[in-house]
Amino acid sequence: MQDTIVMKFGGTSVADAERIKRAARRIVAKRERGFRVVAVLSARGKATDELIAMAEEVSPAPDPREMDMLLSTGERISCALCAMAINDLGHQAVSLTGSQAGIVTDTAHTKARILDVRADRIHAALDEDKIVLVAGFQGVSTAKDVTTLGRGGSDTTAVALAAALGAAECEIYTDVAGVFSADPRIVADARKLPVVSFEEMLEMSASGAGVLQLRSVEYARNHGVRIHCRSSMEDGPGTVIVAEQDTMERPLVTAITHSTGESKITLLGVPDRPGIAARIFGALADANVNVDMIIQNEAASEGAGADMSFTVTRDDLRVARLTLEPVVDELGIGGIKEDEKMGKVSVVGAGMRSHPGVAAKVFDVLGDAGINIEMISTSPIKISCVIRAERVDDAVRGLHDAFALSGKDTVLAEDPFAGPR
Amino acid sequence: MQDTIVMKFGGTSVADAERIKRAARRIVAKRERGFRVVAVLSARGKATDELIAMAEEVSPAPDPREMDMLLSTGERISCALCAMAINDLGHQAVSLTGSQAGIVTDTAHTKARILDVRADRIHAALDEDKIVLVAGFQGVSTAKDVTTLGRGGSDTTAVALAAALGAAECEIYTDVAGVFSADPRIVADARKLPVVSFEEMLEMSASGAGVLQLRSVEYARNHGVRIHCRSSMEDGPGTVIVAEQDTMERPLVTAITHSTGESKITLLGVPDRPGIAARIFGALADANVNVDMIIQNEAASEGAGADMSFTVTRDDLRVARLTLEPVVDELGIGGIKEDEKMGKVSVVGAGMRSHPGVAAKVFDVLGDAGINIEMISTSPIKISCVIRAERVDDAVRGLHDAFALSGKDTVLAEDPFAGPR
Repeated sequence: MQDTIVMKFGGTSVADAERIKRAARRIVAKRERGFRVVAVLSARGKATDELIAMAEEVSPAPDPREMDMLLSTGERISCALCAMAINDLGHQAVSLTGSQAGIVTDTAHTKARILDVRADRIHAALDEDKIVLVAGFQGVSTAKDVTTLGRGGSDTTAVALAAALGAAECEIYTDVAGVFSADPRIVADARKLPVVSFEEMLEMSASGAGVLQLRSVEYARNHGVRIHCRSSMEDGPGTVIVAEQDTMERPLVTAITHSTGESKITLLGVPDRPGIAARIFGALADANVNVDMIIQNEAASEGAGADMSFTVTRDDLRVARLTLEPVVDELGIGGIKEDEKMGKVSVVGAGMRSHPGVAAKVFDVLGDAGINIEMISTSPIKISCVIRAERVDDAVRGLHDAFALSGKDTVLAEDPFAGPR
Repeated sequence: MQDTIVMKFGGTSVADAERIKRAARRIVAKRERGFRVVAVLSARGKATDELIAMAEEVSPAPDPREMDMLLSTGERISCALCAMAINDLGHQAVSLTGSQAGIVTDTAHTKARILDVRADRIHAALDEDKIVLVAGFQGVSTAKDVTTLGRGGSDTTAVALAAALGAAECEIYTDVAGVFSADPRIVADARKLPVVSFEEMLEMSASGAGVLQLRSVEYARNHGVRIHCRSSMEDGPGTVIVAEQDTMERPLVTAITHSTGESKITLLGVPDRPGIAARIFGALADANVNVDMIIQNEAASEGAGADMSFTVTRDDLRVARLTLEPVVDELGIGGIKEDEKMGKVSVVGAGMRSHPGVAAKVFDVLGDAGINIEMISTSPIKISCVIRAERVDDAVRGLHDAFALSGKDTVLAEDPFAGPR
C-alpha cells in the first residue's frame, strides 16, 4: 500500500484565494508523487478572531458550547474552498468536518482533548483514491456536540490523524522555513535546525517557540509521529522532529527561545500557614490562569510573612488580578504588586543533561551584558531566566553568540554515551 | 404537554448583533408564555452571498458537495450567536446543525429535498426545558454529507420541523408585516391580508410574492402546517396561511403579485418535427433553467417553421443562451431573439374559480392603460400576463384599484357554495 502523508496548513497558508490555490497545488503534487494524502487546514488568517469578536458583540461571556459551534465554522470554510481548488486541478477531494473525520473528544468545550480517532471514513475515501481534507482544531464530543481543541489545535488534529493512520510523516506547513536556533527576526544569522528531538521541541514550544503547539509535540512523542515543519511559501526541507537516538548529533545547546509577554505578580507579606499556597494557586488554576515560575523569599523576621512572586502571561494578568483580590483579603496578605513588562529567555539543548556548566555560562553572559535575572527555572535540558522585556533581544543575541549557534559552528557535548557518527 | 411553536427568522432579522439580540428576546418572550420553542435561523444578511463570492474566487465551477459544506456555515454562526444571547437572558438554549436536528435529505447537493425529520434530539432538548435553535437551509444526506436546500430553504426547514413536531404554528418572521394585497412599495394603500389559503399563497409565491418560499408552502399544505407570516420589527398579527375552508371569506381577487426579472427568448423558424420541443426544453431543464410561459405561433406558410417564445428569469438568461446555441445549430432553427426587460403581473384569488369574468376585466384594465400583453397563462385561481418590465408598476396599481383591494372594500365572490359568515 502507498504511504500516507498528513499535511497541515496554518491560517496564513490559507489566508486568501491565491494561498488556498497554492496549498491545493502542494497537496496535489504530493498525491502525484504516489502518496495517500490527508490535509488538515486551519481557519483563514484572522477568521477565528473575527468570529470571537462577533461573539463578544452578542454576549459578555459566551457559552462555551455555542462558542465551539461558532468557531468550528472557520476551518470548514477553508476545507471546502481548498477541496474546490483541488477538484479544479483534476483530482478528487473531499472535505470532512472534525466530526465526520472521526475526531472524538471529551466534553471540555473550547479546550477539548482528543479521546479517539475513528478514521473509517478517511480510510474509505483514501481507498477511493480521494484526497481527504479535514477541518482542524475541532472534533465531536462523546455527547455528540461540536468541540474545539483550543489555540493551535489544528497541529494536534494533524498529529492525531498521522498517528491513527500510521502516516509516514506529519508535515506542518507555516510561514517560516522550520525551527531555528533563535528567532530570525532577532538574530539575523540564526540557523535552521535540520533535526530536533521531541524533548527539545517540547521545551522550546513551552518557552516561546511559536512554530509548533506544545500539545501536538507531546502527542507526537507519545505516539511516535515524525513531524516535519516546513515553509508553505518555498520548497526545500525544514526541520524534522524525531525521537532522540544514540546516533543523533547532540549539541550542548540547540536553541535560544524567548517570550516578551510575561508579567510578574508579587504578593507581599504572605502569612506562613499550611495551605496558603494551595489556596492561592488553586484559585488561579480554577480561573484557567497558567502560572509559570514561582519563587518565595524567606520572611524578613519571624511572623512577618514572606513575599511570593510568580509569572503569568500578560494576557492572563487581568483575570489573575480579579481572581486574587478576594483571596488577598481572605488570607490577610499584605498586598499585590504587578510588573507587566517582563520577558523570558531560555536555553534549550539535549546535550546539557550531562553538562551542568551551561547554567553558569548563561548567568555570566547575562551578567556581563548588565541584564538582571529576576527568576530562574531549569529542567535537565533547559535553563529559563525571567528578565525585563526590553532586554530580551539583547539576551537572545548574547546567548546565541556565546554558544556559537549560528552557521555551522555548533558546540557539541562531549557525551561519553554518544554512539558513532 | 405544552404546545410547540416553530419560529423562523430570516437573514435581515439576524443581520447584526442588535438584531440577533432582538430575535433572542422574541424567542424568550414566547417561551415565557408557556410554549416549547424551536427557532430556525437563516444566515446573517449577506453572509451567504459572501461565501458564494469566496467560492467563485477559488473555482470557476465549485463542486456542489463542497459548496454545501461552505454555505452551511452561515446558519450555524447565526444559531450559535443567538444561543449565546438567549443564555444571557437567563434561559437555556442549544443550537443544532441541520444534521444534529435530524433533517435527512437526498443527495442532490445545493438543492436537496427533505426525506425525513428525525427529531429525537430536539425532543430530548425540549424535554429538558431548553430552547432549541436549528440552522436553517441545511441537512445531512443519506450519504452522511452536509446538504443545502436551495434559496429560501430555511422556510422549508421551519415548516418541516413544525410538521414533524406537531407544532401549533410555524411563525415566519421577516422584515415585512405579512402578506399584502400588492407590494406596498408600489401600492401605498395595499392591504395586509389577515388570512390566505395555501392555494392562493402557492400561486402568489410562484408569481413573485417574496415573503414565503414556494416549496415551504407546498410542504405546509401537504402536512397541514399553519403558517403565520409576521414582522420581526413590530408586534401585532401578520398573515395566517391555512387550508381553505367553507367558512372562509372568499374574495374574488385576493392579491396582485408581480415580478420585473423576466426575460423572453424567441426561437425563430423552429422546424415542425416531432421531438423538437422535447429536445429544446429538455436541454434547458438539464441546465437547471426554469421555463415559465411558452407560446408557439403557427408557421406563416407550410414548411416555414413556427416561432416559439418562452420566458425565463433574467438570472437564468445567460445559461439559457449558452445551452440553446448548440441546440439551435443541431435542429436547424432559424435564430434566437432575446428580450431582457420583461415583467409579469398576476391576479390571484380563490374566488375566481367560479367567476370567469376576472380574465376579461384584467385584459380591459391593462388595455385601457395602454399596456401590451405579450403572453398569458392561467390557473383556476390565477391569471398572469407577461408585459414590458417598465409598465409593471402601472399594471399593479391599475389592477389593485380595479379590483378594489385597498382598505376594507374587498369584492367578495358571490359563491353559491359559500357557507354562513
